[in-house]
Amino acid sequence: MAARYDADVTGLALTPMLTVTDAARAIEFYERAFGATEVSRVSTPTGQIVAEMSIGTERFFVVDENAGAFNLSPESLGGTSVRLNLIVDDPDRWTRAAIAAGAREIFPVADQPYGLRQGRIADPFGHHWLLGRPVR
Amino acid sequence: MAARYDADVTGLALTPMLTVTDAARAIEFYERAFGATEVSRVSTPTGQIVAEMSIGTERFFVVDENAGAFNLSPESLGGTSVRLNLIVDDPDRWTRAAIAAGAREIFPVADQPYGLRQGRIADPFGHHWLLGRPVR
Repeated sequence: MAARYDADVTGLALTPMLTVTDAARAIEFYERAFGATEVSRVSTPTGQIVAEMSIGTERFFVVDENAGAFNLSPESLGGTSVRLNLIVDDPDRWTRAAIAAGAREIFPVADQPYGLRQGRIADPFGHHWLLGRPVR
Repeated sequence: MAARYDADVTGLALTPMLTVTDAARAIEFYERAFGATEVSRVSTPTGQIVAEMSIGTERFFVVDENAGAFNLSPESLGGTSVRLNLIVDDPDRWTRAAIAAGAREIFPVADQPYGLRQGRIADPFGHHWLLGRPVR
């Protein structure tokens, strides 16, 4: 790869890495849908993009599918095994923005019995995002 | 559900939710393998466990599979669409502990060209964890 891992990461950190069929397009989607920012982008020797993205203080990776390395996309698998739970200021607004950018509603935003106002969308690459905030 | 969402969550937060075939057993595995702590556990009206876990400052959820809600496990899908990248103090030690608890090595821990000493394991429920730290 071209870049080295951010050397100032010293503490414990857990970051999800989302496998997609087209990382370049997915990065653009997350920028439009969630206002995400691309922190870094490298290419592996076999040509896959590995990009670190931020949404505010939060981080995730977007990685091109590589079946040989067991990195499989929701499209190839026929579903996703890990959802992304995102707490935001205004889930209704975030959901509208994501759908305008190409996401699909799975469950509408509503006040849930577990204390969140929350809905669920699927992004164009098959990853599911829960967008919610504590019920006020 | 029995509990309400932690009402002091006000800022943006991104937390992965791992679907598994047996959340009760998976919670025990993550406790043994990673020293994780169960923060909360609720059951949905249809009987699925939804548990929030912590590893130090980091959080993730463990959720029972529920195909009707599109919550599918790696075992049902035949792979995982999201990997968990965990930065730790000593990836060799963490990997040995995870394997002793029942994980399977996917890639051995080694100094990687992108600046991490890192390896990959699959947990008994099919989720893949990258355990690494910046190369010193």
